[in-house]
Amino acid sequence: KTYFDCIPCFLRQAIDVARHVSDDLTMHEHVIREVLKYLHEMDLHKTPPEMGQKIHRLIRELTGNEDPYAEAKKQSNIMALDLLPRLSAQVEQSDDPLDMAVRFAIAGNILDFGALRNVSKEILLDTIDQAAELPIDGDVDTFRDAVDSATRILYLTDNAGEIVFDRLLIEQIGPGKITVAVKGSPTINDATMHDAEAAGLTDLVDVIDNGSDVPGTLLDECSDEFKQRFDEADLVIAKGQGNYETLSEVDKDIFFILKIKCPVIAAHIGCELWSMVLKRSSR
Amino acid sequence: KTYFDCIPCFLRQAIDVARHVSDDLTMHEHVIREVLKYLHEMDLHKTPPEMGQKIHRLIRELTGNEDPYAEAKKQSNIMALDLLPRLSAQVEQSDDPLDMAVRFAIAGNILDFGALRNVSKEILLDTIDQAAELPIDGDVDTFRDAVDSATRILYLTDNAGEIVFDRLLIEQIGPGKITVAVKGSPTINDATMHDAEAAGLTDLVDVIDNGSDVPGTLLDECSDEFKQRFDEADLVIAKGQGNYETLSEVDKDIFFILKIKCPVIAAHIGCELWSMVLKRSSR
Repeated sequence: KTYFDCIPCFLRQAIDVARHVSDDLTMHEHVIREVLKYLHEMDLHKTPPEMGQKIHRLIRELTGNEDPYAEAKKQSNIMALDLLPRLSAQVEQSDDPLDMAVRFAIAGNILDFGALRNVSKEILLDTIDQAAELPIDGDVDTFRDAVDSATRILYLTDNAGEIVFDRLLIEQIGPGKITVAVKGSPTINDATMHDAEAAGLTDLVDVIDNGSDVPGTLLDECSDEFKQRFDEADLVIAKGQGNYETLSEVDKDIFFILKIKCPVIAAHIGCELWSMVLKRSSR
Repeated sequence: KTYFDCIPCFLRQAIDVARHVSDDLTMHEHVIREVLKYLHEMDLHKTPPEMGQKIHRLIRELTGNEDPYAEAKKQSNIMALDLLPRLSAQVEQSDDPLDMAVRFAIAGNILDFGALRNVSKEILLDTIDQAAELPIDGDVDTFRDAVDSATRILYLTDNAGEIVFDRLLIEQIGPGKITVAVKGSPTINDATMHDAEAAGLTDLVDVIDNGSDVPGTLLDECSDEFKQRFDEADLVIAKGQGNYETLSEVDKDIFFILKIKCPVIAAHIGCELWSMVLKRSSR
């Protein structure tokens, strides 16, 4: 597999981050030139999250900012928390609350500042509205059976803000048998422990961090504690494109829950752009 | 002015061209790496067409293909010629034939394989339908007065296929006082003399080439004959984004006629993406 189409996208992300952090055009140019040099020399056969980890590390170094998306993440959490009571009521009043919670968990995955440049409240609201109606690419009943019979579920989050939507699904499955994992340190707008606290997840469920700054889950780079939880889990729920790209070949019972936001992943999964996906690993 | 947003787009174009030319992934990777290296070292303060000239020269060298868009250009000409009788009748039957011809000349500018990845017949037809209705960002009556009083008009074309649509406008203005210019050699899908012949322009009007492979008009790089025609012209009509980017600061009476296809140009002109623009230079 090659991911050449990700290269222009990484550059676009570098420009976005530089602008997030500063108005200084000289700094922007420096970031762009150094990222171009790095990409020129990089192994282009890694998965996008592995390449993304390295590039976003470099960008954080070049900009001197350890968490360029801090403010964006904060705003995403606030925006999502503001919507939570309405969505929670909508789940409870639904004929099939688990199905509706899956739909909102997918909708929340739109809050991805790597794949998309920016996600306005308007786009988020549209995505939520569509989520209640659009077909799910996957089978909710199979998912229902799997979570019902599982005893130890590991829930791998993706982005800040999105983790507020994950609460709805975690509540439907039953928080008692779930461990939630966030990233070990900031990478793009991926959720960290700080966001789990802001989203109220730490009051609801056991939350650990994975010890890594890969925008996905690269087991070799995760902490021993995380790897142990991963091994012990009888079911894994993995949110977002990054987790799909890093875990789709891993031998484990995993349900990938995501909104398709880029043509590379759409082609990989074999579905349309903007699809709502609930896909079991082919372990 | 800086055009950092063009850098990811150039890379995307490099990938597109590599795929146009070959299925060999090793060659694709070689093209990407070399373009990354070139971009890393490039002067990023030139206009996009100046950067584009250098990058597409490099891509043509790397792929060993002097005209990667040859087949795409041929198809664009065929597609446009197929539509010509209908559009010609629509212009003639219009209450204001010059206005309608301007609209179709703008619509034809959608056939741009630099700004867009691909332009299907469906997209072209939609663009034509919208062109008859959408507001023009500019004043057709001012343009009418200018072409009526001009005696020597130089008409700078942009893309293959699009030049078929230009015929409609040239016929309305009067071919006798117009010289049409095409590019000196292939660059992206810009029209060359070969396309002017295929489009039937050479039978209608005096056609010259500008001696250059810049996807725009960089006077310093054009042939002496072209520069003389440019100097002698009392009015210049310049099609497309590339000509706008290279000529908007030149001291000459120029009408820019274009469809806005990228956010960089939209910001530069101060209009919305996909606008139809008829803009006189502020010489």
